[in-house]
Amino acid sequence: MRTTDGWRATGPTELRRVRLERRDLRPDDIAVRVDYCGVCHSDLHALGTHDRHAEAPLVPGHEFTGVVAGTGSEVTAFSVGDRVAVGNIVDSCGECAMCEAGQENFCRSFPTLTYGGTDRRDGSTTLGGYSREYVVRDAFAHPLPAGLDPAAAAPLMCAGVTVWEPLRSLGVGPGSRVAVAGLGGLGHLAVKMAVALGATTTVISRTQDKHDDARELGAHDLIASTDPRQMAAARDTFDVLIDTVSAPHDLAPYLKLVAMDGTLSLLGYLGPVAVETTDLLIGRKKLGSAGSGGRPATAEMLRFCADHSITADVEILPSSQVNTALDRLRRNDVRYRFVLDMSDLD
Amino acid sequence: MRTTDGWRATGPTELRRVRLERRDLRPDDIAVRVDYCGVCHSDLHALGTHDRHAEAPLVPGHEFTGVVAGTGSEVTAFSVGDRVAVGNIVDSCGECAMCEAGQENFCRSFPTLTYGGTDRRDGSTTLGGYSREYVVRDAFAHPLPAGLDPAAAAPLMCAGVTVWEPLRSLGVGPGSRVAVAGLGGLGHLAVKMAVALGATTTVISRTQDKHDDARELGAHDLIASTDPRQMAAARDTFDVLIDTVSAPHDLAPYLKLVAMDGTLSLLGYLGPVAVETTDLLIGRKKLGSAGSGGRPATAEMLRFCADHSITADVEILPSSQVNTALDRLRRNDVRYRFVLDMSDLD
Repeated sequence: MRTTDGWRATGPTELRRVRLERRDLRPDDIAVRVDYCGVCHSDLHALGTHDRHAEAPLVPGHEFTGVVAGTGSEVTAFSVGDRVAVGNIVDSCGECAMCEAGQENFCRSFPTLTYGGTDRRDGSTTLGGYSREYVVRDAFAHPLPAGLDPAAAAPLMCAGVTVWEPLRSLGVGPGSRVAVAGLGGLGHLAVKMAVALGATTTVISRTQDKHDDARELGAHDLIASTDPRQMAAARDTFDVLIDTVSAPHDLAPYLKLVAMDGTLSLLGYLGPVAVETTDLLIGRKKLGSAGSGGRPATAEMLRFCADHSITADVEILPSSQVNTALDRLRRNDVRYRFVLDMSDLD
Repeated sequence: MRTTDGWRATGPTELRRVRLERRDLRPDDIAVRVDYCGVCHSDLHALGTHDRHAEAPLVPGHEFTGVVAGTGSEVTAFSVGDRVAVGNIVDSCGECAMCEAGQENFCRSFPTLTYGGTDRRDGSTTLGGYSREYVVRDAFAHPLPAGLDPAAAAPLMCAGVTVWEPLRSLGVGPGSRVAVAGLGGLGHLAVKMAVALGATTTVISRTQDKHDDARELGAHDLIASTDPRQMAAARDTFDVLIDTVSAPHDLAPYLKLVAMDGTLSLLGYLGPVAVETTDLLIGRKKLGSAGSGGRPATAEMLRFCADHSITADVEILPSSQVNTALDRLRRNDVRYRFVLDMSDLD
């Protein structure tokens, strides 16, 4: 066994530094020295629902970048020293229709999650990227393209691909009219990507406060959702509305903004939702969702981000401040993603 | 005023023959001698919710065919004796974005419904096609193509265009995989149209009973929704699932059948629905709806049906048996649409 240091949940709002074991490298494994790991909303969710008495520790973190520190005997795609990036899934069955379509994130026997998942070979619980080393199948690591800052690129691996997949599958490109509701980790990347794809891009926010922020991200306009006049003027005008609001909320006002044959894509709140069928019927509107990404889409997204110099706007904290980061994220006090610098674990 | 005979609601389950007034022809009006009028599920709904003490009478009927009996002074598109068809809307604002896009069914100031609507010029309540004569703006009447039986074509004007619009807007064509849940007035036309569009078409029914019916309509396969094995085998396989089930029902089993990036289109039950976001997320599936049709889509649908010899499978009853028709429709005892023959009103 290899050992490393990392941050383990000891309560819903507290992580402590601990010594962790990593498996010895299998022939198709690489060891990654984790340099930067993003702090995702789902980390908060995992901490909140984790059973403290569970046998397996909870070590969050599923969007990280680093450098290859070791390679298994059969690895050819990576060499020690290569820059790599890993997202929220680290394995899948490889045989089902979804895996064959390159949508390992929808693997029918469920993909192996980067933390809290069950390793397909030894049955162990996966421990995440809030640690100095991670061991991963080479097929689920991506080369980090030159030019992408490794700290600011870490959130691309979960937040980034989560907004990329719907933008692409819904055909966003030049001429598209895209709205992004909620300007957090997901939302700010959705704005940058939609703009780079050529779409006219509008931010929907509760108030006008974020107008300047939206402009800085490249958005062409901002709508205050609390202003009935602005909401009425924007009726039926967006081909795609990317909804990144993470709390339960009424979808009807957003559906009104969707253009005929357009789609409201739910990325933030993933629980049960209620819809009036007539809000879909009038204008033949659609409600969809997406999450995470398959390997081909992730690779495509990284190339696109490198070509268009897109990374997340991040606030970097030493990993020893992980509890502060989580507390502030809980209060939405971040612009727009925390990234933990893992070098303090050496 | 012109007068004619028709069938007026006197209770939620009873209509009585009465004398009705029709407006004198405006310059852009035509008078239609109604020969055949389909009996739609929404007629049942209208009867069930109608206030018996309301000032305006309720005369249902919004899918009918007949012959032009008179023309207003400015009408050039129709002549006396022409075969015509009228659907569920008879006017719209003509100025909003939806009307300009040829989607008068989504008119922002609401289209004028064929019955129970409010005439845009004189404010009167529209009285429907369960009558021997109807007066309608020429722009909202369609020539009935040669070759289409007028009785069997009547249901095309509501049921037909309601399934046509989603099939077309969702891009159904050769190679598409379409499923149709529910084999009633809407469903049987969805099967015929999907087949004629070149799609591989499957009927989803509670039991195997309707297997032969489905085959006769042209369907390639039938899935019994009560057979877990068949439902599991069909997972993720339909690009478009047309859901015509008119009662509230769980959407999760149907969403499972939708292929990646596919759409479940709700046409039968138009109330509030609940969805688990994860049922949309896994496979990036979409939930949509549609209803009725704009004038261009209606004209396109009629041409397509004439080209492919598609009409509804109807049971024709003299209009004097309207109460029987409604009772039997309430019990789903119809294969697949009742059409009232109005000639007994002469």
